[in-house]
Amino acid sequence: MAGPAKITTKEQVEEFLNSYDDFLFDCDGVLWQGDQLLPYAAETLDLLRSKGKRLIFVTNNSTKSRQAYTKKFAKLGITVTAEEIFGSAYSSAIYLSKVVKLPKDKKVLVLGEAGIEEELASEGIQYVGGTDPSLRRDIAPEDYDKIVPDPSIGCVLCGLDLHINYLKLSMALINLQVPETIFLATNIDSTYPTNGKLFPGAGTMSAPLILASKRQPISLGKPSQAMMDCIKAKFDFAPARACMVGDRLDTDMRFGVEGGLGTLFVLTGVNTEADVLAADAPVAVKNYMSKLGDIYEILKN
Amino acid sequence: MAGPAKITTKEQVEEFLNSYDDFLFDCDGVLWQGDQLLPYAAETLDLLRSKGKRLIFVTNNSTKSRQAYTKKFAKLGITVTAEEIFGSAYSSAIYLSKVVKLPKDKKVLVLGEAGIEEELASEGIQYVGGTDPSLRRDIAPEDYDKIVPDPSIGCVLCGLDLHINYLKLSMALINLQVPETIFLATNIDSTYPTNGKLFPGAGTMSAPLILASKRQPISLGKPSQAMMDCIKAKFDFAPARACMVGDRLDTDMRFGVEGGLGTLFVLTGVNTEADVLAADAPVAVKNYMSKLGDIYEILKN
Repeated sequence: MAGPAKITTKEQVEEFLNSYDDFLFDCDGVLWQGDQLLPYAAETLDLLRSKGKRLIFVTNNSTKSRQAYTKKFAKLGITVTAEEIFGSAYSSAIYLSKVVKLPKDKKVLVLGEAGIEEELASEGIQYVGGTDPSLRRDIAPEDYDKIVPDPSIGCVLCGLDLHINYLKLSMALINLQVPETIFLATNIDSTYPTNGKLFPGAGTMSAPLILASKRQPISLGKPSQAMMDCIKAKFDFAPARACMVGDRLDTDMRFGVEGGLGTLFVLTGVNTEADVLAADAPVAVKNYMSKLGDIYEILKN
Repeated sequence: MAGPAKITTKEQVEEFLNSYDDFLFDCDGVLWQGDQLLPYAAETLDLLRSKGKRLIFVTNNSTKSRQAYTKKFAKLGITVTAEEIFGSAYSSAIYLSKVVKLPKDKKVLVLGEAGIEEELASEGIQYVGGTDPSLRRDIAPEDYDKIVPDPSIGCVLCGLDLHINYLKLSMALINLQVPETIFLATNIDSTYPTNGKLFPGAGTMSAPLILASKRQPISLGKPSQAMMDCIKAKFDFAPARACMVGDRLDTDMRFGVEGGLGTLFVLTGVNTEADVLAADAPVAVKNYMSKLGDIYEILKN
């Protein structure tokens, strides 16, 4: 089979655009780097819209709801609607309401931030934990007696929790020792790239619980196909006519390939041209280009 | 090879005692269960002392220093000296001072409680983190800039930290991204049994860092032979004339067998008689008895 094809000419761009109706985008490293919009990224999105393409922005960030995430786009001058955004918190809420069909009398114990709470609420799912200020404290001696499995808790859901503590980990672990308790993670990214450094990612919240409970969570973030199933359920697209655009081979590109989508890899993020062309690349990408903005730049020249 | 031999008669007890000069004890599940002294455990320790045996109490608990741990014994009516106790915090301090020979101008970044700080101080090792109240707070936006690798930090040491938070995990991770930074764990127990339940163990503090740094710590607790090396360095005993006594096959008994010691398994803790006799037992134990106190009880009858 032929290796990844680099798109550099007007003809190649046109053929590429004609191949797809739906475009799924990773955001950081594709549209922007940190707080810096990438060249011609906004113009390319406008061009795709003008051609009637559907845009879906797929993010593993669970700390913000879709609504809150639109503000990040707006700040960089890109107009999107909450409906076009698909985050791992929303994915988790959809999974619980539509796939698992969590009974209405069951609650979710959340390790995570407001983004998860807002998305659970949008699907009418009850939750405890999360940003509850009464849990932002040290464990007390009496907690070792008080923390017992709560029959009203049907699921433990872990996202990036900037207020993680031993009390919340203990509550989660004790409830996970009940085999019926569903164990979900918004995503299991090991690191959270910010300010040019790698901070602990959402996966570091579930890692202690995986070790102690000897259980594995279902992840609702890229590259998990549980997330792809939720996206397909919502947007109802033909995978062969959809393309996943991303900067990471082991998450974005794997996500697209395993979902049966076309793939476009860009060189403005984590992985390099050498990575995508390597014989031992983690996944076989279909197309790649220097940057997403090349679509606009090449067509206009 | 013959399976584990159960000790039930006076002759068997006498032969067993004559085989060893040094006795290493796990504590919880051997001497006591929670806050309850086990029958004839204290009398058996007195009997061993009267026969000139040396007693060493080996614990993975790093939250208390050896000095502080003597109080736990005293509360249950057993007199021991700090010198007879070997905990994983002390083991870590010994490893850093005697094996690694950490340079005097290097500090240890501690995720853990006062027990670790006290043992590092007893070996003249500088540390940061630990119980420092200024780190018991949420991460602030400016921390993402401020947290950088600290060249004065030569080691990240993780024990059970009841005040774990994202700020401390971030500091540890950023420093572990420097390959020269030594990565140690007092122990990697996945759970911490207390009040009849399993709470998150010390291993849940290093698990997030293992995931995010893609590095493995050296563990200084049972069953790691790094701990055995530290014990042998301090007590200078002949392994063949020493016996490890414990209630867990995968930690205590493995620790003894891999260290070349004799082993005595007791049925007052985690594992059962069926476990020790199973064809697929994790380790081949030499002897076992119902409880440690049988030594006293059988000899006196």
